[in-house]
Amino acid sequence: MKDKQQNVLIIGAGLCGSLLALRLGQRGYNVSVYEMRPDLRKVDISAGRSINLAFSDRGIKAMKMVGIQDKVEPLCIPMNGRMLHDLEGNTTLAPYSGRDHEYINSISRGGLNALLLDEAEKHENVTIHFNKKCKAVDFEKTTATFKDYDTNKEFVEDADVIIGTDGAGSALRKSYYLEKKFLFSFSQDWLSHGYKELSILPDESGGFKTYKNALHIWGREAFMLIALPNLDGSFTVTLFLSFDEGEYNFNNLTTKERVLEFFEKYFKDALELMPNLVDDFFENPTAPLGTVKCSPWHFKGNTLLMGDAAHAIVPFYGQGMNASFEDVVEFDKVLDEGHTDWETIFKVYEKNRKKDTDAIADLAIDNFYEMKGHVNHTNFREKRNLEMAFEKTFPNEYSSKYSLVTFNEDIGYRDAMVRGRAQDKAILNMLADGTLKIDDDLRSNLEKVKTETENILQDDRIAGLKS
Amino acid sequence: MKDKQQNVLIIGAGLCGSLLALRLGQRGYNVSVYEMRPDLRKVDISAGRSINLAFSDRGIKAMKMVGIQDKVEPLCIPMNGRMLHDLEGNTTLAPYSGRDHEYINSISRGGLNALLLDEAEKHENVTIHFNKKCKAVDFEKTTATFKDYDTNKEFVEDADVIIGTDGAGSALRKSYYLEKKFLFSFSQDWLSHGYKELSILPDESGGFKTYKNALHIWGREAFMLIALPNLDGSFTVTLFLSFDEGEYNFNNLTTKERVLEFFEKYFKDALELMPNLVDDFFENPTAPLGTVKCSPWHFKGNTLLMGDAAHAIVPFYGQGMNASFEDVVEFDKVLDEGHTDWETIFKVYEKNRKKDTDAIADLAIDNFYEMKGHVNHTNFREKRNLEMAFEKTFPNEYSSKYSLVTFNEDIGYRDAMVRGRAQDKAILNMLADGTLKIDDDLRSNLEKVKTETENILQDDRIAGLKS
Repeated sequence: MKDKQQNVLIIGAGLCGSLLALRLGQRGYNVSVYEMRPDLRKVDISAGRSINLAFSDRGIKAMKMVGIQDKVEPLCIPMNGRMLHDLEGNTTLAPYSGRDHEYINSISRGGLNALLLDEAEKHENVTIHFNKKCKAVDFEKTTATFKDYDTNKEFVEDADVIIGTDGAGSALRKSYYLEKKFLFSFSQDWLSHGYKELSILPDESGGFKTYKNALHIWGREAFMLIALPNLDGSFTVTLFLSFDEGEYNFNNLTTKERVLEFFEKYFKDALELMPNLVDDFFENPTAPLGTVKCSPWHFKGNTLLMGDAAHAIVPFYGQGMNASFEDVVEFDKVLDEGHTDWETIFKVYEKNRKKDTDAIADLAIDNFYEMKGHVNHTNFREKRNLEMAFEKTFPNEYSSKYSLVTFNEDIGYRDAMVRGRAQDKAILNMLADGTLKIDDDLRSNLEKVKTETENILQDDRIAGLKS
Repeated sequence: MKDKQQNVLIIGAGLCGSLLALRLGQRGYNVSVYEMRPDLRKVDISAGRSINLAFSDRGIKAMKMVGIQDKVEPLCIPMNGRMLHDLEGNTTLAPYSGRDHEYINSISRGGLNALLLDEAEKHENVTIHFNKKCKAVDFEKTTATFKDYDTNKEFVEDADVIIGTDGAGSALRKSYYLEKKFLFSFSQDWLSHGYKELSILPDESGGFKTYKNALHIWGREAFMLIALPNLDGSFTVTLFLSFDEGEYNFNNLTTKERVLEFFEKYFKDALELMPNLVDDFFENPTAPLGTVKCSPWHFKGNTLLMGDAAHAIVPFYGQGMNASFEDVVEFDKVLDEGHTDWETIFKVYEKNRKKDTDAIADLAIDNFYEMKGHVNHTNFREKRNLEMAFEKTFPNEYSSKYSLVTFNEDIGYRDAMVRGRAQDKAILNMLADGTLKIDDDLRSNLEKVKTETENILQDDRIAGLKS
């Protein structure tokens, strides 16, 4: 598929679509991208949602693939750990890794997207069209119908292949589901919690009002607040809260007084940094948190879903963007294999990739519970302390589940999940039954964890007759 | 909700809908049932699909609840175990339980449905309308629109509550999904295999051509054939086969010669009993195998999904009908609790019930792999032999996963799954590492299995921070 001048139509110029356009442009394909929104480099289209994102090694690997890592770096603010805020306002920095060079970054969604669009457009064989909304895809004929928001007219485009990177509400995925022309497995799962973005503005001199290099968490079991830093000195704050359960929920936080009462009671130190809270609260939308899985991702060799369109996940592992970028890396690998038809390429790609995107979807939900509550539990903290010590003292011998998922871009999400869960289970159980004691020799503790992890993996293999 | 003369509208007079109508009729509600098909007591509407079903203790419990167990019994053919047929035509009877009184039954779907309709209609407060297809449900107004196939006219019915027992393709569930008026979690998952029903006809004197009291299985790893007996001396045979993978699949079995070649090669002894194979094969439809899960099952106190409409499962545990009947038992229990509004009743019912229907859905998929292949594996057979010996010798001390699911109607599916899987894991691992030896003292083996099962459950509890 390398030699032929194939026409690739991409629906959606978000993070995944623009990276894909750039990469396919580099590979010499004729690429047309259609995006329903205006060009974010010319118009401010942030709508109080996902202003910044966590960016880590899998995403960095993708940037290296397209050769723009040096341009991305200035957009990043390193976050070395979780800054845990308790009810009294006491804080503890819980590092993400025992290895100093392992940290995640806060990055501006808009800034990164703009860079990717700029880089993609440098290629003559890549064109990007804004204000063109996809109305329908005919996946049998490989054509897409768009509405031009500038002229209000509809038009049809055809291509050799159409790739839908049109996000969680993908038009292409909807057509797979609704037209029932093949057996399409599909799931959408909503959490009982929604989210709302708020902000901590910069101080008067443009500095950060609280510690810059961390992901701040106010975990309160039933709900939580988090904050990620922005380059302008502000923090984007997100409240995760049930729609309708508990004493305080989105449905009953309807007055200024009640919102302030809620924050006074549970997030006192955050409230002090947010004089703008009430305005933000009532101006910004409340959005749901969903997981989407589906299969197949492709229809024959005609159309393919990538990124959130194929696998939308909840944000709690900070892997949504990284997973979508990794899609492009994995797709690129399959293109390197020299298959002679798109159907094979799409099939191989899905076979390689889906197990990993299913895994990160499940991990992201696990982490919701971890962040809200477990970070405050004694057994969880002991486990983390032990793991940090392992990573620090034996950097080549141990990686926690978090490290496997976040900092080990050459291990797939699925393998990271299986090993990481087995390690967690080993440590938690050995702490519970006294086999592992925090004050014992670290090397001997590491060996115990390694041995017990292997036992757990082995037992699961024997019992898991399916695999 | 007991005293008021509430009007309950039920969509669908299949097995679940007709049992529900009967039970609500017994409780004094005004019940109207609308069914799209003709009255199966007057017209033969079997369409080459699911002519007979497995009927076991959870279903029997429901029949006892409505007091018709004595009328159901004559419809049943006991199946004491799996009759395994190997490639050479050798057979082995693998019992379902070590306790003689534990067996499952083959029952005619039509016969049982007719009985339930008869019983329901004995109540003056129950009316059943046939040939009325539900076109749409307005779950905010609690009204349903039907098309009358007799007059071709549409009409609208309202009710205090509407319960959709309209099967895997539920119109009510579709309206929840498509109207997007609340966050509706939903999944449909298709197996790569489909199924086709075939038949072994009675012999010339009306007798059974092969052993009557078993569920026959020809498990061939990649595909399988099963057969269940009918009262008329025939067997309903079902072929489970991939649509498009492997040397033989539904998509490429397109000629008489190829179908015969396939059966000659893999199901020689079955073929000898099926001179009618080729006609059946090309006359009967090939159908997909899907799992449906969703939540919430209800919209406020207006509408509720029950049976396959709420949780369609694959047929491999023989629990589809039993689970739907158990829905009615569980719903009935909640009605007994004396709640004063339907919304609470629906909420409590879903909270109690969904964990169990999720579990049987997963168990049914596990059993697909067990029936196709594991029944032939040495480690699996050793495990089953040991379990049969436990159940026979210590009938009050041990139940296998199969027994927990099938014969222990007072244990929920979820608990049966968790305990059953832990037992399987314990036995398979101890057989693999030599801790358990088949020839050791049975009592000592039982104690080992019990202890290891408790360890596994305990370890999972400690590691499973979510619960």
